[in-house]
Amino acid sequence: MDTSAAPGSGVGVAVDLVILTLHEGRLSVALVQRGEEPFAGTWALPGGPVGEHEDLDQSAYRVLENEAMIGEESVHVEQLRTFGAPGRDPRGRVVSVAFMALGADLPAPRRGADVADARWWAVEELAGVELGFDHREVLDCALERARAKLEYSTLAVTFLPAEFTVTQLRGVYEAVWGSGLDAGNFHRKATRTPGFVEELDRFAAPTGGRPARLYRAGTGTTLQPPLLRSGEESA
Amino acid sequence: MDTSAAPGSGVGVAVDLVILTLHEGRLSVALVQRGEEPFAGTWALPGGPVGEHEDLDQSAYRVLENEAMIGEESVHVEQLRTFGAPGRDPRGRVVSVAFMALGADLPAPRRGADVADARWWAVEELAGVELGFDHREVLDCALERARAKLEYSTLAVTFLPAEFTVTQLRGVYEAVWGSGLDAGNFHRKATRTPGFVEELDRFAAPTGGRPARLYRAGTGTTLQPPLLRSGEESA
Repeated sequence: MDTSAAPGSGVGVAVDLVILTLHEGRLSVALVQRGEEPFAGTWALPGGPVGEHEDLDQSAYRVLENEAMIGEESVHVEQLRTFGAPGRDPRGRVVSVAFMALGADLPAPRRGADVADARWWAVEELAGVELGFDHREVLDCALERARAKLEYSTLAVTFLPAEFTVTQLRGVYEAVWGSGLDAGNFHRKATRTPGFVEELDRFAAPTGGRPARLYRAGTGTTLQPPLLRSGEESA
Repeated sequence: MDTSAAPGSGVGVAVDLVILTLHEGRLSVALVQRGEEPFAGTWALPGGPVGEHEDLDQSAYRVLENEAMIGEESVHVEQLRTFGAPGRDPRGRVVSVAFMALGADLPAPRRGADVADARWWAVEELAGVELGFDHREVLDCALERARAKLEYSTLAVTFLPAEFTVTQLRGVYEAVWGSGLDAGNFHRKATRTPGFVEELDRFAAPTGGRPARLYRAGTGTTLQPPLLRSGEESA
């Protein structure tokens, strides 16, 4: 057989975006309520067809900007996985390249022309809510990826402003992992893991207690040893 | 804008496979020499169009079986990334979903009807060799993924038969990472990392020295702490 596809087989190619942020301290995903069939009235991930002259990343950034007015400088975007089960779109064969976008304090998702509504959903609020297409599976794939990457990469800082406290950083881990972490252990690991965070000579505005030191993202991209999850202490 | 693609935009969707094994002790990839234009005479990854009623994984397993006579039970297959730059196939728009397949002692790649040749290439042999399409980028993506995953997962055992010695396991790391590892340190980390390998009551047939104990894959999927690369010792 041929070693590559002959073009023109008539499949639609789309991108779908799992946009995650911490909204009111909770891990949240941007969803749009569909205004049209199929799945009218149902909440789904924002997405759209890949343009004729666009690379896949460009399509993802375009959707991000159109649906949430988010510029590419403020988010971490990565390709997640491609979903292509034959029946996933009742209108015909559509293969969807899913992306994950993470950012700090992202704006409220925008309500585009043909959607009924758009908003942040706390991930924990979504238990039992039916999503359109195979978007539950796409969302679960993104959550699994985000949870795993927090363990061995410095990805957590993408959820925070440029300067942050260790308490805020711990809040990211707790929100994404959905479990509490010991404050003292976390502080020690976060500040002693090479490349993770860089201490600044500034402090956050006091909120009652003693002022908390500010940090910024370090230069590392991987954590070694990884931050351990709650209860698994090696210190 | 619509939240999903309208089907029928006429894009071709293909799968391409990066099939990796240890062949004669070296990390090797299965390539086919193209028999037809475009890129006639050039080496490229095996692949093919996604069938009308196939999910993407099914296409990958079909190509695997057709091009290398490899059944799905003997390999670890995972989706890698999707490549969709507009000009990547000179015949028209083709989006390719790349998969990585890893296995032990895989058979020689099969020479299909319209390819000129097919064989294992040691990855190090490929420096400077031009591959068809964007397959160099796809290959590099797979190598990066495999190298990274060996660090924090038990993926290395997929390159080995069901029972193996620690020396064989170290050989996988050395071949994939392209660097030597200290035998004593590696032995200690491999056998003391929970879930990585399970000691058996059997020994490999002696090859001159003392018999080497056999191990099989443990039940873990992640390594914590990860095995450190050569030179970065924390023992």
